[in-house]
Amino acid sequence: MSQSLFDKHLAIFRQAVAAVESRVYWSPFPENPAAFGEGAVEEGYAAFEAYRDASFYLDQPGVVGRAGNEVSPYGIPLTIAYPQCNPDALILGGKMAMSSWMKAGPEDRIGVCLEILFRLRAHSMELAHAVMHTTGQPFNLAFQVSVAQAMDRGLEALACSWREMKQVPSRVLWEKPHGKNPPLRLDKQFMVVPRGVGLVIGSAVSPTWSAFPAIFANLATGNPVIVKPHHEVILPLAIVVAVARMVLKESGFDPNLVSLLVDEEAGAAARIVSLKPEVRIIDYTGHSAMGEWLEENARQAVVFSQKSSLNCVVVDSTDDYKGLLRNLALSMCLYSGQIAAAPRLIFVSREGVRTPDGVQSSEQFGRDLAQTIGHLMEDPQRAMELLGCLQSPDTQARIDEAREAGEVLRDSSVVATDRWLNARCATPLLLRATVGDEDRYAQHRFGPIYWVVETMTTAESLAAAERAMNSKGGLALAVHSTSPHVQEMGQEMAARVGVSLHVNLTGAALMSLPAPYSDFHGSGVNPAANCCFTDSAFIAQRFFLIHSQRIAG
Amino acid sequence: MSQSLFDKHLAIFRQAVAAVESRVYWSPFPENPAAFGEGAVEEGYAAFEAYRDASFYLDQPGVVGRAGNEVSPYGIPLTIAYPQCNPDALILGGKMAMSSWMKAGPEDRIGVCLEILFRLRAHSMELAHAVMHTTGQPFNLAFQVSVAQAMDRGLEALACSWREMKQVPSRVLWEKPHGKNPPLRLDKQFMVVPRGVGLVIGSAVSPTWSAFPAIFANLATGNPVIVKPHHEVILPLAIVVAVARMVLKESGFDPNLVSLLVDEEAGAAARIVSLKPEVRIIDYTGHSAMGEWLEENARQAVVFSQKSSLNCVVVDSTDDYKGLLRNLALSMCLYSGQIAAAPRLIFVSREGVRTPDGVQSSEQFGRDLAQTIGHLMEDPQRAMELLGCLQSPDTQARIDEAREAGEVLRDSSVVATDRWLNARCATPLLLRATVGDEDRYAQHRFGPIYWVVETMTTAESLAAAERAMNSKGGLALAVHSTSPHVQEMGQEMAARVGVSLHVNLTGAALMSLPAPYSDFHGSGVNPAANCCFTDSAFIAQRFFLIHSQRIAG
Repeated sequence: MSQSLFDKHLAIFRQAVAAVESRVYWSPFPENPAAFGEGAVEEGYAAFEAYRDASFYLDQPGVVGRAGNEVSPYGIPLTIAYPQCNPDALILGGKMAMSSWMKAGPEDRIGVCLEILFRLRAHSMELAHAVMHTTGQPFNLAFQVSVAQAMDRGLEALACSWREMKQVPSRVLWEKPHGKNPPLRLDKQFMVVPRGVGLVIGSAVSPTWSAFPAIFANLATGNPVIVKPHHEVILPLAIVVAVARMVLKESGFDPNLVSLLVDEEAGAAARIVSLKPEVRIIDYTGHSAMGEWLEENARQAVVFSQKSSLNCVVVDSTDDYKGLLRNLALSMCLYSGQIAAAPRLIFVSREGVRTPDGVQSSEQFGRDLAQTIGHLMEDPQRAMELLGCLQSPDTQARIDEAREAGEVLRDSSVVATDRWLNARCATPLLLRATVGDEDRYAQHRFGPIYWVVETMTTAESLAAAERAMNSKGGLALAVHSTSPHVQEMGQEMAARVGVSLHVNLTGAALMSLPAPYSDFHGSGVNPAANCCFTDSAFIAQRFFLIHSQRIAG
Repeated sequence: MSQSLFDKHLAIFRQAVAAVESRVYWSPFPENPAAFGEGAVEEGYAAFEAYRDASFYLDQPGVVGRAGNEVSPYGIPLTIAYPQCNPDALILGGKMAMSSWMKAGPEDRIGVCLEILFRLRAHSMELAHAVMHTTGQPFNLAFQVSVAQAMDRGLEALACSWREMKQVPSRVLWEKPHGKNPPLRLDKQFMVVPRGVGLVIGSAVSPTWSAFPAIFANLATGNPVIVKPHHEVILPLAIVVAVARMVLKESGFDPNLVSLLVDEEAGAAARIVSLKPEVRIIDYTGHSAMGEWLEENARQAVVFSQKSSLNCVVVDSTDDYKGLLRNLALSMCLYSGQIAAAPRLIFVSREGVRTPDGVQSSEQFGRDLAQTIGHLMEDPQRAMELLGCLQSPDTQARIDEAREAGEVLRDSSVVATDRWLNARCATPLLLRATVGDEDRYAQHRFGPIYWVVETMTTAESLAAAERAMNSKGGLALAVHSTSPHVQEMGQEMAARVGVSLHVNLTGAALMSLPAPYSDFHGSGVNPAANCCFTDSAFIAQRFFLIHSQRIAG
């Protein structure tokens, strides 16, 4: 039965494998809600509404109570009660399910995973609303990145897992000459063996996009998965777990291969479960403190962590000053800088920015950037569609603190609309510093808090950006320069620090949105991540290969 | 120039890549010394002799003195003085060399590495003698495993590195539809970026075989390598480093990409260097204490460690009792059990061993195994050709201690020949225990110390073997049984514990000798190793991939 699931999705899956190899653009998941037809957005909202003020159904083992206290950053309480389960029961359930899942082999496992993904596609609209009303993402971003691209990332992980597992034949006749004696003939078999129970700790701002590679890579390589969402952002992953369990059951597998672990407090359950000896793989996305704690303490597991970062922009010169400003302002406003690879520090030298219309001083550049942001924020409705909401009240508090830390180039202000009167929505805060003020600007201040940092020269801008990302982490570097020499210096710096490089981006291409099937996210070289998503090492450490041999008959 | 090196070796290299994919037998390195023609062994010995009582020439930076105090386990002092260098000078040298090595790209780097390997092939004989007179390996094993197969393992690592680096194109046009707007077109480039300075800490019993995968994988992926041999076993890796530096220099690269770090004391230099922030990759083979120390403390690096293990044999039933005994005795005698995957514990049940000639009781099995070993040891000359020498005097001391720990089935005795009167050579010690005596038999006692452990049933044998390997580490499990059910149980246990499985081996196929290009060695699942040699994860963690992108023109 599940073999037919692999066959059912084979045509698409082959394209996914080809995309990962060629790294060209490709996707089977529409990013435009319009693709789902008229009324789909409203139907999706109704489906989301149906979860509110109710118990979330999940038939998991070891239920000890109910938990969940989500409130939408847009101002509405969700009041969903999720089953709270004994972690040991979930671990045991996963372990019991593992043997037959392992024996099913790569094709059957990937067939089931593909079915989960395409079943989730049918839930795209409700999932987008669920993401919006937990993370605060604007609806269009939630749909594009947290639904369509998250599913792309899951499919990408399946394609990568396939490639890794299929590198080795399942059986071979090994025949070695042995001098004058008959050759030594061995019948060898190779087996893909899963590492053990996987724990995926969800992010509060990117619950699906960040978790899907881990969830699907774990399942494809034979490992059970315990999904532990952030305690304020449960619903999106709960829907995913429910769909996954249903598909597993229908396919004749044990649904306990995927389970949901909820708690009421930040980190409590995650810290306990992550130290259990049976937990052999941990994937974490979130702030650095917890990531470092996991790396330090969960020594029985392979830990993949993506943590805080200070992504940098170096502005030197441009052919398109307005395009530069608009692209930068867009990537600063989009979801209020709560995207991992969003820019944080913008370095510009006292020599100013060379443009076709002459040199703009660093002061002028700061004013122009503030003004460009201002334009995007003029209409509250449109502003909120770009900004979304601040996921956490802590972020609002950080904005207030940061205001005191530097010279304010553009102040943050609250945004409200008729539709969402009580939304936690605030425009970007733009601050100014000089390069020596490292202890002020080179700090993690997650949210819409940005610094224009003035240096003496572009070379100093690059050096200061390198220092900041080396010490505090970095995922992406943008360089705006018409000089091949500066671009080359940027390239070398990006290689040293282990960040992606974005040269002279204008228009809709944002440094903050890595493309599935094509871009690598994170490198493991600087503190922003201890691994790269989704390279070979990200997959290959989730399973091992053993061979068995006997004399060939 | 180095491009021509890649072309020069391309035909062979393609075969190596094909072998890694198909995992069939293949090798360009003859395992029989006779392939080198008459007199070659003697010439090799003369070349080895020329190193004795002399200074070893290496033009390395930061020389602070000379060190080296090797004594052959066969009883002759080597008295070779190696340059002792400041570790920071070697690190700096490596780092300075890295940029142009990175820019050379995969083809050129692998071309140089292939040239190093084939240049080393011309030194096969002297290298075999150098291995013999440092590790104590018998000459034929030194030639077969520590020279021919070590070079195979280096070539395998190059083929795997090639495959990993070539998974991603170097450049792609990425074109994404953008609604009614023109498509988003990005020019993306991908770059292989080395992780950083590699430290390879050599084993005392397997200096080349265990180090070559790491040395060549590091170089191929762009990383400089500091080779730190065991302080009693320097010469083999010193020859390798000297040849590598010469080839690098001839090819126009900085020879400091490979350097030798020697010290006079066990572990002193290794511990200091392994904590340097610039050291980003550590490969270690040796006893567990140091491996665990590295994993615990060298947090700035990726640590690949292969440590102590308790490989198990479960004897249930056989079609070829004599073949079983001889195969087992051979793998116990070969290099006195100083091979990592050699058997340590042999489990047999009170129900005895079913053979075509009836059931042999567990007591009888113990006597028969002792006698089979005795036959192999009858002639001192032939015994020493099989046993080689004990690398360390500590191993002799462990034999003496172990004698007190259990019932002696076969005592160990000293072997001497006319040629090597003062060799540190001892026959195997075979002890007996019952399954409850875990605190006696389930201990690391590296060397020719073996236990026959009596259980109630074969199922209990498998369970006890699983427990021992889970807690103390395991690389290989041998099962002798004519029962498909027992073989199946062995297969499942091997998968759970993460060890290779060897079913009913007789003749020349030994559980202790993994085949290059075909077998995986270690799994990272049990304490014997934290990784697998040479899977994707072993390679992929040595470099990272970054992309850079700009709007396509």
